[in-house]
Amino acid sequence: MPDTNSPRPVPAALLATLRSIVGDRGLLTAPSDTAAYAEDWRRLYRGRTDAVIRPASTREAAEVVRACAEAGVAVVPQGGNTSMVGGAVPAEDGSELVLSLARMNRVRDLDPVDLTLTIEAGVTLKAAQDAAAAQGCLLPLSIGSEGTAQIGGILATNAGGNNTVRYGNARDLVLGLEVVLPDGRIWNGLRRLRKDNTGYCLRQLFVGAEGTLGVITAAVLKLFPQPVEVEVALCAVPSPEAALDLFTRFQRHDAASIQAFEYMSGAGMDLVLRHIDNARLPLAQTAAHYALIELATPRPQAGLRATMESLLAQAMEDGIVDDAVLAENTSQRAAIWHLREEHSEAQKRAGASVKNDVSVPVSRVPELIRRAGAACTALMPGIRVVPFGHMGDGNIHFNLAQPEGMDAAAFLARDHDIMDTVGEVVRDLDGSFSAEHGIGKLKPYMMPDWRGGAELELMRAIKHAVDPRNLMNPGKIFP
Amino acid sequence: MPDTNSPRPVPAALLATLRSIVGDRGLLTAPSDTAAYAEDWRRLYRGRTDAVIRPASTREAAEVVRACAEAGVAVVPQGGNTSMVGGAVPAEDGSELVLSLARMNRVRDLDPVDLTLTIEAGVTLKAAQDAAAAQGCLLPLSIGSEGTAQIGGILATNAGGNNTVRYGNARDLVLGLEVVLPDGRIWNGLRRLRKDNTGYCLRQLFVGAEGTLGVITAAVLKLFPQPVEVEVALCAVPSPEAALDLFTRFQRHDAASIQAFEYMSGAGMDLVLRHIDNARLPLAQTAAHYALIELATPRPQAGLRATMESLLAQAMEDGIVDDAVLAENTSQRAAIWHLREEHSEAQKRAGASVKNDVSVPVSRVPELIRRAGAACTALMPGIRVVPFGHMGDGNIHFNLAQPEGMDAAAFLARDHDIMDTVGEVVRDLDGSFSAEHGIGKLKPYMMPDWRGGAELELMRAIKHAVDPRNLMNPGKIFP
Repeated sequence: MPDTNSPRPVPAALLATLRSIVGDRGLLTAPSDTAAYAEDWRRLYRGRTDAVIRPASTREAAEVVRACAEAGVAVVPQGGNTSMVGGAVPAEDGSELVLSLARMNRVRDLDPVDLTLTIEAGVTLKAAQDAAAAQGCLLPLSIGSEGTAQIGGILATNAGGNNTVRYGNARDLVLGLEVVLPDGRIWNGLRRLRKDNTGYCLRQLFVGAEGTLGVITAAVLKLFPQPVEVEVALCAVPSPEAALDLFTRFQRHDAASIQAFEYMSGAGMDLVLRHIDNARLPLAQTAAHYALIELATPRPQAGLRATMESLLAQAMEDGIVDDAVLAENTSQRAAIWHLREEHSEAQKRAGASVKNDVSVPVSRVPELIRRAGAACTALMPGIRVVPFGHMGDGNIHFNLAQPEGMDAAAFLARDHDIMDTVGEVVRDLDGSFSAEHGIGKLKPYMMPDWRGGAELELMRAIKHAVDPRNLMNPGKIFP
Repeated sequence: MPDTNSPRPVPAALLATLRSIVGDRGLLTAPSDTAAYAEDWRRLYRGRTDAVIRPASTREAAEVVRACAEAGVAVVPQGGNTSMVGGAVPAEDGSELVLSLARMNRVRDLDPVDLTLTIEAGVTLKAAQDAAAAQGCLLPLSIGSEGTAQIGGILATNAGGNNTVRYGNARDLVLGLEVVLPDGRIWNGLRRLRKDNTGYCLRQLFVGAEGTLGVITAAVLKLFPQPVEVEVALCAVPSPEAALDLFTRFQRHDAASIQAFEYMSGAGMDLVLRHIDNARLPLAQTAAHYALIELATPRPQAGLRATMESLLAQAMEDGIVDDAVLAENTSQRAAIWHLREEHSEAQKRAGASVKNDVSVPVSRVPELIRRAGAACTALMPGIRVVPFGHMGDGNIHFNLAQPEGMDAAAFLARDHDIMDTVGEVVRDLDGSFSAEHGIGKLKPYMMPDWRGGAELELMRAIKHAVDPRNLMNPGKIFP
């Protein structure tokens, strides 16, 4: 751990140079201004920084990075700062500067024939979605923090979310990138091509690299035609196996219309119904397990409602669905999604909780839910097992809430035991210890164990080749 | 150019070591056996090699690569050897060994719930398609050489093909990889996860690297539900602009059912009808431009035929389609595709031709066809402009056949002039000089001009980090 008692201030000459590049508006140095940028929103980490630099253009960003590189000062690229794993916080010794992309927020181009959106890193995901919708297009990325998260961070962390089952992760939506490299050079890879086999696929190296290889300043994203029919159903199902069976039926029938397929546990739903004011279950009674299905298509007269009704009727007949409700309008749709989206908040209100953002092959989700649940209960009787999430892509947020009445600190003191317990099952099922949140500062210590050997050595070799002085977001990903 | 008069034989001790690893069956050393592996099938390049090594397992492949690395001998990984750009031919001086993956041809696993196929590099694409189909699944990669091309080469070159418009390139179908690194270490990244954010995305670095970073020995590929309805139409259209308009209409209506959308020029079709024995145009008269549309879906009772008919009827009313025919059965479908697939063969029979595998943003395909065609005609009156290919992803094979009666050698002597003429237009339209065939030995000289500066420097830095002694497929990609 860095010694917070030994601050390493950034040279005043560098700050003066940076001010000359970005101007007064582009440089925050007052502690009251910089504090919010130095802490992650989950409050897992609090760093310090002498300055937050806010370039207004790619050229400014490049000059800033070059000046920092020449001074040997590390840079922490930051978007909306909504990382779940402390991916954008500077070090505690104050030796790193934060490079905020927030002022680079222009939509550069949208082509509704090519279905491409060329956009700067600082645009929020919500603003990008809106820009697409205004031209009758869909940007199919949706995450809880979309009002704050920015495109640059979304790509640097390869964000997932609810629609991955259909459209893939952020990675799958990127056609082109513009990146400022660790020495201040600009790589302009803003191509809008669906096919381009001309050497190594650099864009996929920067996507998901969490800012450790350079600063993403702009991107070309794929768009899709906007859906015209949307149907949402909430189902009570007797088991995780039944939920998987239901998913498989929808997938076999018409994979291309599954916009989301989410799993929720009975325990998690109970917490939502108890702790969230306007949460109401639109089913006759509570259940042990739930599935939330969203279908959507741009096809006119597609008859998605009939599809949903007939598949669910058959599923009820076959005993894999106990009860189901279809949203009749937009507000009912929102009310059903509300039950899913408030899971984290409900868990927060129920006391301390330990989060595990894990994934397994889709076919193994039921086994994950059963085995990891049993293992955690064996570890700590009374622990509340509240797994939920993206069943359709095998990504379950396997969260554990403290036993009722237990001391929160005593519970959290065992967080590593709990994470290891879940992790063992995940590993046995060929899963991953970080499905969509990434590594950041929270999980580098897990890398040698899970991705060690040739894999971590390769990552280190690439990091060293691209950023030999380790000046780009140091302390993230690598242990 | 290497001096072919100065052969650099591989040390006999290395050959003995290799024989001890792979056995007699795994090592070909007779010139009559190795010759076919040392020449590319287009006969653009003829190299020489002292041995073709055919390991039967990943472990053997790793030991082979390690032994070669220790001896300082370069390795050329080779699959079906169907590269269009000489991507798998060894050097002319005999200093490189060919590593054939042909004996690593097992399907390791197919999971119809996860929709994943775990497969070794030496399986042909056709055999992989068949393995998927046997379980009611679709492996949506289709290229002309699929009976010979192997999965390893398909991935190393990021193959494209007819279905890219819907399913993306080979890159988009890869969930996991197993790779033998240049020093003989094995990276086992055979994960079957839809979400996994744990450091750099190494698999996308090896896909498309043309064997210059390591040897792909196995992969996990995404599968899809098999379509139950398929419709194929051939349309006569008045202009490239009309073809694009038609594509856009289908895309807006139901992008998820467009399996292929191909463009053909009147001149190209004329060559097919003249030179291919059983080619017959199922329309009343020839046209200046054609579009081939294939729709497919796993949805039962999807009514694709009605969709096709109503969109085409509207298009005819609006004057963007002059005539159209729908295939009534499988053999009619094949007959229509035959017209498209025999384009290369017909051009071959018509004399010498120059091929340009280029791409532009989809919206700019009509401009590419017009401008590059006019520029080539201005360069060489009488030249036959025969562009065809994947309009739906902006990838046009912009081929030029020699003027009738011209001397073939005289025509081919101007191939660089012709390629440059097309290239200038492509560049002006923000396109790529290699859409799906890659760089190989044919196009490294174009890299500095098209991908120079920071991009090529980054590629070189990565190459050096992963293969510091340049022992993996040297002479490919890099100039």
